[in-house]
Amino acid sequence: MPRFRVPEVTVERLSIYLRALKKFSDDRIISSQDLAEIVGTTDAQVRKDFAYFGEFGIPGQGYRVGKLKEEIIHILALDKKWNLALVGVGKLGSALLAYPGFRREEFKIKLAFDVDPGKIGKIIEGVRVEDAKRIPEILSSNQIEVGIITTPAEVAQEIAEKLVEGGVRGILNFAPVRLVIPENIKLKNVDLSMELETLVYFLSR
Amino acid sequence: MPRFRVPEVTVERLSIYLRALKKFSDDRIISSQDLAEIVGTTDAQVRKDFAYFGEFGIPGQGYRVGKLKEEIIHILALDKKWNLALVGVGKLGSALLAYPGFRREEFKIKLAFDVDPGKIGKIIEGVRVEDAKRIPEILSSNQIEVGIITTPAEVAQEIAEKLVEGGVRGILNFAPVRLVIPENIKLKNVDLSMELETLVYFLSR
Repeated sequence: MPRFRVPEVTVERLSIYLRALKKFSDDRIISSQDLAEIVGTTDAQVRKDFAYFGEFGIPGQGYRVGKLKEEIIHILALDKKWNLALVGVGKLGSALLAYPGFRREEFKIKLAFDVDPGKIGKIIEGVRVEDAKRIPEILSSNQIEVGIITTPAEVAQEIAEKLVEGGVRGILNFAPVRLVIPENIKLKNVDLSMELETLVYFLSR
Repeated sequence: MPRFRVPEVTVERLSIYLRALKKFSDDRIISSQDLAEIVGTTDAQVRKDFAYFGEFGIPGQGYRVGKLKEEIIHILALDKKWNLALVGVGKLGSALLAYPGFRREEFKIKLAFDVDPGKIGKIIEGVRVEDAKRIPEILSSNQIEVGIITTPAEVAQEIAEKLVEGGVRGILNFAPVRLVIPENIKLKNVDLSMELETLVYFLSR
């Protein structure tokens, strides 16, 4: 458990370090310089990121890959299973139901929700679609911890409130709108239009 | 044109301010406090973000919505048209071809590419799918400025190189891999697994 508040960018880099480490055998020793180069940062940054969580390097040598992976998996809480529910089984929602990064041992999209009577009751990408009206009731009996919102922007706030009512503690929001939710619920926004707009800004300079 | 290097987060917030402003009538005056509240930041931050680009407020009152929208649209270079190409017409790629945020007046996905002979030559979501082998040649005759990569991670680097060869100046990368590209090409990574991993980290505390 870290002693200080860990910045979100450090947590994001841990996820990226972990992915990079998966390409190496567990008994290899990797230096902070090597790791920095693979993920595109500085070795000082790598050491600073790990320092939040204690000391797991071999002084003067680097990190043993297997041990470092284990530590990061534990820090990121990927050594437990997380149950997810996705709301809005349109094109993006369906693509995410099938997305390999969301279908892993540690993440399971257990349920999906939509308002379309043509989708309710169907199995889409292996996940049963339920009526979005019943979110609070169905979620609380399924121990869902994370909700993914892929609805149109206009209904995202209402859906977020239903997810919170159903007991989720975190929301990954793809709808291009700012959600207002209780402070104890963790919100991450993935704003695809913003990514594209930011990209073209830099091209125009 | 800003006199200083503008941080990427400022540019990202401009995109979010613009979306918020679109809900108000052009002749309304909005204060930095109001705008801060809508997008979830502080009024000092709002003023600081705009200060990079000059002075467009009305002292002691705020900003006229229409004028501010116009300024942001100009800053973000959304007053010109951008031609995009998408590579990897799988589930995520197809969803993005149909994504409203990527189908706007200022953004046009003109071409898509895939390696699957069953997709090449087809029109998917209104966009013609070409052979990924021909990326450099086809891009350069179509004035494509931005490439979107939605391929599997293993081939993303090779695709990025073909896009650069074809003349793109920016890449929006959805493949979970760090791309190595020339420094003059702007790269934005959208890493969906990382978003989810970062979210659950904060839930586990």
